[in-house]
Amino acid sequence: MAKTLRVGMIGYGFMGKAHSNAWRQAPRFFPLKAHVAMHTICGRQAAAVQAIRAHLGWENASHDWLEVVESPLIDIVDIATPNDSHAEIAIAAARAGKHVLCEKPLALNVKQAQAMLAAAQKNKVVHMVCHNYRRVPAIALAKRFIGEGAIGEIQHFRARYAQDWLVDPDYPMKWRLDKNTSGSGAHGDINVHIIDLARYLVGEFKEVCGLMHTFVKERPLTAPTSKLQSPAAKAAEKKGKVTVDDAALFIGRFANGALASLEATRCAAGRKNQLTLEINGTKGSLSFDLEDLNRLKFHEVCGLADRQGFRDILVTHPDGAHPYVNHYWRNSNSLGYEHTFLHTMADFVNACIEGKPVHPTFEDGLKNQQVLEAVELSVKKGQWAKV
Amino acid sequence: MAKTLRVGMIGYGFMGKAHSNAWRQAPRFFPLKAHVAMHTICGRQAAAVQAIRAHLGWENASHDWLEVVESPLIDIVDIATPNDSHAEIAIAAARAGKHVLCEKPLALNVKQAQAMLAAAQKNKVVHMVCHNYRRVPAIALAKRFIGEGAIGEIQHFRARYAQDWLVDPDYPMKWRLDKNTSGSGAHGDINVHIIDLARYLVGEFKEVCGLMHTFVKERPLTAPTSKLQSPAAKAAEKKGKVTVDDAALFIGRFANGALASLEATRCAAGRKNQLTLEINGTKGSLSFDLEDLNRLKFHEVCGLADRQGFRDILVTHPDGAHPYVNHYWRNSNSLGYEHTFLHTMADFVNACIEGKPVHPTFEDGLKNQQVLEAVELSVKKGQWAKV
Amino acid sequence: MAKTLRVGMIGYGFMGKAHSNAWRQAPRFFPLKAHVAMHTICGRQAAAVQAIRAHLGWENASHDWLEVVESPLIDIVDIATPNDSHAEIAIAAARAGKHVLCEKPLALNVKQAQAMLAAAQKNKVVHMVCHNYRRVPAIALAKRFIGEGAIGEIQHFRARYAQDWLVDPDYPMKWRLDKNTSGSGAHGDINVHIIDLARYLVGEFKEVCGLMHTFVKERPLTAPTSKLQSPAAKAAEKKGKVTVDDAALFIGRFANGALASLEATRCAAGRKNQLTLEINGTKGSLSFDLEDLNRLKFHEVCGLADRQGFRDILVTHPDGAHPYVNHYWRNSNSLGYEHTFLHTMADFVNACIEGKPVHPTFEDGLKNQQVLEAVELSVKKGQWAKV
Amino acid sequence: MAKTLRVGMIGYGFMGKAHSNAWRQAPRFFPLKAHVAMHTICGRQAAAVQAIRAHLGWENASHDWLEVVESPLIDIVDIATPNDSHAEIAIAAARAGKHVLCEKPLALNVKQAQAMLAAAQKNKVVHMVCHNYRRVPAIALAKRFIGEGAIGEIQHFRARYAQDWLVDPDYPMKWRLDKNTSGSGAHGDINVHIIDLARYLVGEFKEVCGLMHTFVKERPLTAPTSKLQSPAAKAAEKKGKVTVDDAALFIGRFANGALASLEATRCAAGRKNQLTLEINGTKGSLSFDLEDLNRLKFHEVCGLADRQGFRDILVTHPDGAHPYVNHYWRNSNSLGYEHTFLHTMADFVNACIEGKPVHPTFEDGLKNQQVLEAVELSVKKGQWAKV
Repeated sequence: MAKTLRVGMIGYGFMGKAHSNAWRQAPRFFPLKAHVAMHTICGRQAAAVQAIRAHLGWENASHDWLEVVESPLIDIVDIATPNDSHAEIAIAAARAGKHVLCEKPLALNVKQAQAMLAAAQKNKVVHMVCHNYRRVPAIALAKRFIGEGAIGEIQHFRARYAQDWLVDPDYPMKWRLDKNTSGSGAHGDINVHIIDLARYLVGEFKEVCGLMHTFVKERPLTAPTSKLQSPAAKAAEKKGKVTVDDAALFIGRFANGALASLEATRCAAGRKNQLTLEINGTKGSLSFDLEDLNRLKFHEVCGLADRQGFRDILVTHPDGAHPYVNHYWRNSNSLGYEHTFLHTMADFVNACIEGKPVHPTFEDGLKNQQVLEAVELSVKKGQWAKV
Repeated sequence: MAKTLRVGMIGYGFMGKAHSNAWRQAPRFFPLKAHVAMHTICGRQAAAVQAIRAHLGWENASHDWLEVVESPLIDIVDIATPNDSHAEIAIAAARAGKHVLCEKPLALNVKQAQAMLAAAQKNKVVHMVCHNYRRVPAIALAKRFIGEGAIGEIQHFRARYAQDWLVDPDYPMKWRLDKNTSGSGAHGDINVHIIDLARYLVGEFKEVCGLMHTFVKERPLTAPTSKLQSPAAKAAEKKGKVTVDDAALFIGRFANGALASLEATRCAAGRKNQLTLEINGTKGSLSFDLEDLNRLKFHEVCGLADRQGFRDILVTHPDGAHPYVNHYWRNSNSLGYEHTFLHTMADFVNACIEGKPVHPTFEDGLKNQQVLEAVELSVKKGQWAKV
Repeated sequence: MAKTLRVGMIGYGFMGKAHSNAWRQAPRFFPLKAHVAMHTICGRQAAAVQAIRAHLGWENASHDWLEVVESPLIDIVDIATPNDSHAEIAIAAARAGKHVLCEKPLALNVKQAQAMLAAAQKNKVVHMVCHNYRRVPAIALAKRFIGEGAIGEIQHFRARYAQDWLVDPDYPMKWRLDKNTSGSGAHGDINVHIIDLARYLVGEFKEVCGLMHTFVKERPLTAPTSKLQSPAAKAAEKKGKVTVDDAALFIGRFANGALASLEATRCAAGRKNQLTLEINGTKGSLSFDLEDLNRLKFHEVCGLADRQGFRDILVTHPDGAHPYVNHYWRNSNSLGYEHTFLHTMADFVNACIEGKPVHPTFEDGLKNQQVLEAVELSVKKGQWAKV
Repeated sequence: MAKTLRVGMIGYGFMGKAHSNAWRQAPRFFPLKAHVAMHTICGRQAAAVQAIRAHLGWENASHDWLEVVESPLIDIVDIATPNDSHAEIAIAAARAGKHVLCEKPLALNVKQAQAMLAAAQKNKVVHMVCHNYRRVPAIALAKRFIGEGAIGEIQHFRARYAQDWLVDPDYPMKWRLDKNTSGSGAHGDINVHIIDLARYLVGEFKEVCGLMHTFVKERPLTAPTSKLQSPAAKAAEKKGKVTVDDAALFIGRFANGALASLEATRCAAGRKNQLTLEINGTKGSLSFDLEDLNRLKFHEVCGLADRQGFRDILVTHPDGAHPYVNHYWRNSNSLGYEHTFLHTMADFVNACIEGKPVHPTFEDGLKNQQVLEAVELSVKKGQWAKV
């Protein structure tokens, strides 16, 4: 445990907050193979970064990402910026020989992702995409079950990521709704999560066919000051054009023959952040719901016919039978969203010391991007697309 | 299958409708050991009984229960009248050598129940109380599991029967709310159901200590004609005194050492007809909810630690693994409330032919009554009472 | 109520049993506008039909369907035969001026369905397809809510019909797995149910793109006599080729702009007969699960932010607020699968007397068939197909 | 925000870990009215405390609690020791003028609790018991709803705290199973949690009647080294006598007329840490399950009859409608067990600065103790006891 890894984090918004928390907390719970020093937080607005530095637990603040990335005092570069800067920062970091952890989605497109992967490989750094849901304990347990053959050969994968913040037509324009700044809508933002889980749990996609739709094509540039706005005022408000999808669905086939159905939407009234999935195999099934994340449902085709049924596994076994949880609290106490980041950082740190790959690598990020693009191509052409 | 059993049913209200349906339908689904003839329906209002006779499927109507009970043309007497006439009819029927099926609760009190049992035993007739919930397939499966030792020795039984029709203080007086006509309130009406299930699934009670309460002590004699009644009109409306319990709770010990907690209430807002129970044993647990009656939840303490969890058993296995259901529809289709009566009638008919006892017998009815009275005694004295 | 409608039912298998039950029971619970006479049951095997006639409640038995259909003693023809005889019987019945109720799917293909609809229209008979799930009380309530605007404009419809009887590769060949006799597999058998519900609840499909797959391509001609079969015996067993789909998925667009995702599979381990659906609109959402059919989940976008949530509506309100249920039992008691047929027969009988159309008509059956075929076409071509 | 409060924490076991985490994290998420300095951690084993000090985030370590309590460098004393030292430490801290936060249960008995309250009041320090479940967001929301009259007058409170770690008869003796060191078993350890919630949500108890039981009366002094122990080895193993309850149940009445039923057990197979409660009032109901802690179920008696149902409120509204959650993550992300401690510490710190009482105070702790003792008295006497 002698070694110390010094982290430089680029970005200080919502994801910066979540990553900072994980960097602070991971060493408190997990027996890491290195000390972690939260060396520098970096963002464009020097004053804002400085103002939040101590609160988030960092030793230094910077507004020059390149300086951080190239600093000999930094071992790990953690990229928590908006998507359009991932590639540039990651490539520079890899070239500087730094291990790189990058928020999802890895890049704006396949080309960027390829360049990022190439840079990481060429410079032999450890590279990881922060797809935190892989390390929800219930998902990690699902992966273990599948690996042990508990559900046999997979035949169906079905997932849906449903939110509802765009149901309201008065929700105003944001950079996330502009294709130039965001790349895509629900597709790149949340479909990518379930694409990553599909690849993690089932394997590579072979071909896909999709559908993307924008329900509300124009939105007010600013949020209405009141719900009781007069019709005249409403008519006079300035509108911006929404250029990304509100919803993206696709069906597909995996290389191993399993069938896929995925859906991402920001227009499912009442679904706040619901990622559900079900996997059916020749020997059993698994199902999961992110809104009840401490649970995994498992059906096993065996035993007495009168006892068959989905088991409701509370993935918080006090004696360490379940992944990650024994590092926290006894008595099967619940974990939440933030802990998935702790697990990510913990595994990443250990991989940096061991010099071993740690999933999801940039190669995973690239493959996710290839699936995203294949779906987009299929939508454009109205037919199936190979991945 | 040569023999025919001719049924005379006394009573034609809600329970008469449910029993008639069961007599009509049981032979359509179950391979009974006798033909069933729906010979006579009987009630005090001659015209009303005659008017409903054919609709409910009966050959004859009568307004003289004694004549029916003593008729040589009747083999089975089915008692679906209000509680205060159960004893008289059942005793007369037994004396006339008729097999007797009696609605629950068996009697108004222990003394009546004893006389009924004595008459049935002396005259060697088959006797059964219609506690239909014993034959919900999920409950019958729970009984089987317990018999097979699947949950080991029972340590806890916990049940609650919750309804909400008395939450509204404007709900008017009815005979059910008058002790003279009904005996008791939630206690005798619905606590008796979970007492019967407790005895069926766990065993005899040893001692109990209870609590009974009436939240709304006076009710309008007639339902208000409008929710918008003026305060003056409201003040002027005639009230009647509620003389039975709205809720009855008790804790207790079974003879085998298990602990009990039971609750019956008609004041649980939003709970329409919810009978829930959970049983914990040294090797597993079972739980059930009547509002989702095709399911039994089962936990087994064994196997791999990471796979432990309550199983959600859909008790509609298409290949006959579950009790009763294979006589209905393929494809695991759902059953409902009425089918519990078909199962009761089917088992009763077969027992009549075989001359064997069929649970719950009048002895069970008597023991249920003894538990009810022990709880009432404990309430009166403010201390524990032996059963 | 003077009039009597005399029913002739063709078919006496599983569906014949379900229909017979409904014909017997519907008049017991619903105030029909006509008496129903269960006049004749008809099937090819004269002895078998005669043997089951009385048990199912019919007055006469016949083995000549044409005779029944043309008999002046018959008013209604109920078709409960395998799919390949629906068209011939229905057309003959319509020509004979009989009202026709036909099991789903209406026909083997669009062409047949068109001819059936034309015959019914030309002869001015009442025509209905027995898509019984439209009359699950929770589904009927969902339809009412949508009609009242409770969820606003629909944006997403998502349904899945999942069974698991084909997960076992030793499950033997049956006529249902041979395209010549069955037309298709999960697609025509169960996808058609959710297609019908989609059209009922949302509206007409505009375009679709699908995927069909057969996981187990060969099956033993007879069920293995033992699970412990030797490898040699296993290798020697005769196999038949499965020529229909095990699973059929599709995505699509409705004419009103809503998006669809549907899946039917017979290979979802642990899912016995699970039909789930979720509908999202601009003002709310609905969700339903056939394995818990007395419940409808409803989310409404309104009111206080801290009270938002899906409501768990037990669709068994004792005072008649919910469709159909007030004709049964007080106290919110559960209904099951069979009651959906009673509701179908009750509405059909009343429509025959009133001479009014009753959904789903043969036109609905035809449109369902058009969707089925459009999906098949899209699969064949690997691209989107117009409906 | 100029002021800094310096914390001295006594105890460094499981609870010390949970409290340390909360002290570290609360200021990261909540805008506290003071800086928090984690000044000193204190425990008997000097080396062990020193070894864990930095890992848990403390500046100094001590093995002399009195020195810490009396140090002028300490403003807050946080007591996370076993129950038998709470009184002595808390009284000394109060006398030294320190604000005191004490783990639950407050004391070993009523007498100790009275002395602790008196000392805190006399010395005018802020005092709080760490009943963390009061600050589960869903529980805090339930409290708000009740305060707003959303469920009317409460008629029923029903709670159960069920664990299963003592189902295994081979689980060895521990100090928790010896009355001398622990006071009581499930009663003082987990019944106290639901007693505290009952008082928080409903009000004071008036009278109670209980039942306590020990299922396994002797346990091995050490855990068996193998499950495959020979019978001879098993017979020879040394046993210790269990002197506390495995389960404690009671029924009761609140001063406001509501009825109570509470149960605590460590012998409910499959229930890892399940605290469930249901509250029924004249206008609605609430229910909660700690194993799914981000959810509150709420039924409201009003509105259209066909829309009535329990709402499943995900208590993670992104716009701050729900207590505490807006300080964390956007997008309705889940919280877990540890966050309840952050909320406790945050509210305590603010109360210290404001000099205001913060519930649950030592008075609450005392009243909880009075309920515990009244139940024990009722058990001893076999009759009801006043609280």
